[in-house]
Amino acid sequence: MADTLFDQDDQEEDFALDRSLVDEVRLALATADKARLEEIFEPLHAADLADMLEQVDQRERREILLLARDVFDGEILSELDESLREEAIEFLPDDVVSEAVRELETDDVVDLVEDLDEPQQEAILDALEDADRVAVEQALAWPEESAGRLMQREIVAAPEHWNVGQTIDFLRNQDELPEQFYHVIMVDPRLKPTGYVTLGKLLGAAREIPLTELCEDTFRPIRVTQPEEDVAYAFNQYHLISAPVVDEDDRLVGVITIDDAMVVLDEEHEEDILRLAGVGEATSLSDRVIETTKTRFPWLFVNLITAILASLVIAQFEATIAQFVALAVLMPIVASMGGNAGTQALTVAVRALATKDLTSSNLWRVIKRETLVGLANGLAFALIMGVVGWIWFGQPMLGAVLAIAMVVNLVIAGLAGILVPVSLEKLGVDPALASGAFVTTVTDVVGFFAFLGLAGWMLL
Amino acid sequence: MADTLFDQDDQEEDFALDRSLVDEVRLALATADKARLEEIFEPLHAADLADMLEQVDQRERREILLLARDVFDGEILSELDESLREEAIEFLPDDVVSEAVRELETDDVVDLVEDLDEPQQEAILDALEDADRVAVEQALAWPEESAGRLMQREIVAAPEHWNVGQTIDFLRNQDELPEQFYHVIMVDPRLKPTGYVTLGKLLGAAREIPLTELCEDTFRPIRVTQPEEDVAYAFNQYHLISAPVVDEDDRLVGVITIDDAMVVLDEEHEEDILRLAGVGEATSLSDRVIETTKTRFPWLFVNLITAILASLVIAQFEATIAQFVALAVLMPIVASMGGNAGTQALTVAVRALATKDLTSSNLWRVIKRETLVGLANGLAFALIMGVVGWIWFGQPMLGAVLAIAMVVNLVIAGLAGILVPVSLEKLGVDPALASGAFVTTVTDVVGFFAFLGLAGWMLL
Repeated sequence: MADTLFDQDDQEEDFALDRSLVDEVRLALATADKARLEEIFEPLHAADLADMLEQVDQRERREILLLARDVFDGEILSELDESLREEAIEFLPDDVVSEAVRELETDDVVDLVEDLDEPQQEAILDALEDADRVAVEQALAWPEESAGRLMQREIVAAPEHWNVGQTIDFLRNQDELPEQFYHVIMVDPRLKPTGYVTLGKLLGAAREIPLTELCEDTFRPIRVTQPEEDVAYAFNQYHLISAPVVDEDDRLVGVITIDDAMVVLDEEHEEDILRLAGVGEATSLSDRVIETTKTRFPWLFVNLITAILASLVIAQFEATIAQFVALAVLMPIVASMGGNAGTQALTVAVRALATKDLTSSNLWRVIKRETLVGLANGLAFALIMGVVGWIWFGQPMLGAVLAIAMVVNLVIAGLAGILVPVSLEKLGVDPALASGAFVTTVTDVVGFFAFLGLAGWMLL
Repeated sequence: MADTLFDQDDQEEDFALDRSLVDEVRLALATADKARLEEIFEPLHAADLADMLEQVDQRERREILLLARDVFDGEILSELDESLREEAIEFLPDDVVSEAVRELETDDVVDLVEDLDEPQQEAILDALEDADRVAVEQALAWPEESAGRLMQREIVAAPEHWNVGQTIDFLRNQDELPEQFYHVIMVDPRLKPTGYVTLGKLLGAAREIPLTELCEDTFRPIRVTQPEEDVAYAFNQYHLISAPVVDEDDRLVGVITIDDAMVVLDEEHEEDILRLAGVGEATSLSDRVIETTKTRFPWLFVNLITAILASLVIAQFEATIAQFVALAVLMPIVASMGGNAGTQALTVAVRALATKDLTSSNLWRVIKRETLVGLANGLAFALIMGVVGWIWFGQPMLGAVLAIAMVVNLVIAGLAGILVPVSLEKLGVDPALASGAFVTTVTDVVGFFAFLGLAGWMLL
């Protein structure tokens, strides 16, 4: 059945790892065929090889690491999911890890070691050459998830008074240029960046043209302490390709390129999606049941508390329900509709906060909109449910109660859906993380209270 | 209150639009001060100006468009939200729009016109110069959301046998190079791309070195019909900066750069988040209540159907509830916990499908994991709720019923959370869009059935 769930033939086209490769790897493992394994791995990009290691189970992963140790390099280590990376570093012999890490650029080493335990981190830092170790340690001195951690320290800069020819000659005389660079950054004598020139412009211009004439106008230096989230936002907002990073004295200390910003953007999105669903942290698809259980337990526990709160509301109306059991049948509908309408509103609000589109300038307008949308959908569903309740139980008054409760709860859902995330953001709490619990508490409590309260008053 | 919800001073630092600017714009509008308005807009990036237009309401937006027509250019039009873009194009005089569009690169024009109505599209195409119009029309001939729509047609290519000096001389003799290019693509005589050289390498190498020596090994041509979603995935997976696009005969027809891929990645994420929350399409924060209501209604309607299904289950147990009203108090807890556990599992699965990490190779392992995680959390909450139910209502058997129902529903939630999205993907339906409705139906029905059924059997 698993085989038929995914089409074989649309795999290669969409860049996904060809799943027949995993079968071939398993075959090679079964016969401990080292040569075949290396033959399979050889043409793969490090990212695909890392995906492969994430696809198989722990036992197979260890067999692969043992057999194909020679293909294993720092890049694969970089590409691995965090949890598997720790596992691999623990499992591999120290000299293999050291060898692998020495090949990496320092910003990749930072990315690799920053989440490791102290002893693992020490071991890797010790394996580096002195200059690289110092560079990595300097990067680690910046706050977590800041531009300082993200940037590469290899910079291509030129004095602002140079012309194209001088710059090209300078580049050609460098022993080693960074793997990734797309601009030459112009600096003043105090190392303050004053502009930048794209390599395309540099290549297309005559030698005697001064750099200042080719300078881009979208120049935006990034402060080294800036959160990486804001860096990703700036790249996305201003279509930056690379941006200089400056310290508190405005001196150039590094460069961030768009590929790093794209990784951050991807991670931030992943975090938002998972947090909105109450999944604490990204876990890999690896087979650790206990860890996955632990990341999911807290949100379920919060949900239990809010569900008990809602039950306490219902308990106030036990007498009403005992007289009229139809209420027990219909009450989950009101709560469920409120919960869903609230989730819609809060998700839109959380996204708008993340993209900095929801601000105090338009907050009142958005609140007004959410209230009106709640009212409009509330009236639509009041009509539908009023008729359904009436026909189902043959009581027009039951339909009326259902209808009024629906309007009340959908308006409250819209209001809570905008006010809760905005208030959490204001308090410095990530609205993606906590809004869901608050909003569903509100809609459950209001839903049950409105429906059962009205029923007690209008029906009995 | 709105003013105190956002801190003034952390605005500039995180690249968000300085909100005092919106106040200044409103002031300028109040006095119809055209000069002041232009003074405010002049230093702003087009993306920020577009944000500004999204922040104010429709009446203010029109006033701005009337007063500051001269600052309005094609780039701002590109940056605007889709719905506001249509509004602006409708409102602005034709000659202003034509003028604005003529400034844009053809790939931006494609992006601008592809979602417009036929007459608006025609009007804009007519305003273009012939060569540009043909280019845009050719791009529009490719399927929507394909690489062909995304690519720029301006290509910098060189015969594969050239050396560095020949290439640089060629670039320097071009009248106009594309605004954005980071690689020189090497092509064979039949225009098939065979590799590429980064501009950095080109600048750092001596003139006599052949291009073949500087060639990158991460070369991955993209097919022109490839969905843009897969293009974004490839850029993210392989850390590409730009990639050549080829037609069915493997001939080079365009180039996609990472900034375009980043926009797609951002849109895909936005779509996933909103779809998971049952918000049909991205709506802007603009004040159109009716449109927003329409995008949210369908999911609420689906939810109503599933809620009624759950109610039908409860209705089967009316007699049981009538005898024992505590059941009505506690039953929403079981359903709510199941719904949340299901949402957790399905969100993780939807993400893993989007990142191509969940495949037939590891599906069984993930199913096993989700079942065990459901069991583990089910047992934990069974213990908690068993005790709560017992103490609250003084009946150990009620606690036992609650506990068993909790385990059953959390296991089912885990299973549904993985099987529903995987099956939908297999059927070609976006799992982000439809999983939620199916999974909560399952957990509601199973939750109510298990709890009330067990109660009828064990308590009465």
